[in-house]
Amino acid sequence: MKIKIRKAKKSDSKNIIRLIIELAQFEKLKPPSLPAQKNLIKDAFSKKPPFHIFLAFDGEKAVGYAFYFYTYSTFLAKATLYLEDIYINEKYRGCGAGKILMAKLMSTAKKKRCGRMEWIVLDWNTNAINFYNRLGAEEMKEWKFYRMIL
Amino acid sequence: MKIKIRKAKKSDSKNIIRLIIELAQFEKLKPPSLPAQKNLIKDAFSKKPPFHIFLAFDGEKAVGYAFYFYTYSTFLAKATLYLEDIYINEKYRGCGAGKILMAKLMSTAKKKRCGRMEWIVLDWNTNAINFYNRLGAEEMKEWKFYRMIL
Repeated sequence: MKIKIRKAKKSDSKNIIRLIIELAQFEKLKPPSLPAQKNLIKDAFSKKPPFHIFLAFDGEKAVGYAFYFYTYSTFLAKATLYLEDIYINEKYRGCGAGKILMAKLMSTAKKKRCGRMEWIVLDWNTNAINFYNRLGAEEMKEWKFYRMIL
Repeated sequence: MKIKIRKAKKSDSKNIIRLIIELAQFEKLKPPSLPAQKNLIKDAFSKKPPFHIFLAFDGEKAVGYAFYFYTYSTFLAKATLYLEDIYINEKYRGCGAGKILMAKLMSTAKKKRCGRMEWIVLDWNTNAINFYNRLGAEEMKEWKFYRMIL
């Protein structure tokens, strides 16, 4: 199997939505509603997209994706690549697909002179946690993640 | 005391740097180096600033600040206001200054049609944690925060 990574194009929209719903099912979270799906695709391929998408392919088949955007560390005065979603279809786990996708994200971040990559992971997702630890990422245990619904 | 909030201007640069160093000292973190301080001001007042700054004033005195930018929730298909830093000088805590600053951030987020505000907080900072809880924010306990240094 030869996994290839490329930026998503508008013609990938159906695959993007399929994969994001797969991720929501895996994370036991509510998938985006139909209007949200429409909005997401509109935003993704707008003039100033608020996020970027990489897709992972096995031949013609889209088997994974990453959504990311750039945040900023005020203490480093450098951009951070923030990984909003990363997902590999379960049939393609353990074969290096995730590693290839993360390597692409890391090289993208370095090209943009980012000081860090950051993301959050569900505490029960031990496969992902072990994967991130093996890549040299670190859990920032002293920080609590807060959210306010508007 | 009458706290007023406004967007930072280039002439506020010295105050911004003073306050960010105060925050780093309070958080027991390494403050930005001199080159990072210079970069931060350059980025803040560039054509496409990667973050926004509100300053809180008591008369002419800058007593607090917030750095924020917009991230994106792929599941909501809506922007999120991400609060990178929020700080009120200790002499001005407990007098409503933080609440006024947070209210300004919340109204800004609503104007931008954000679905959420998000941030991280140090686990020993119980005053801040209690403050956020009182405002109706919630700790996302099931999520671990990960970082990779590049």
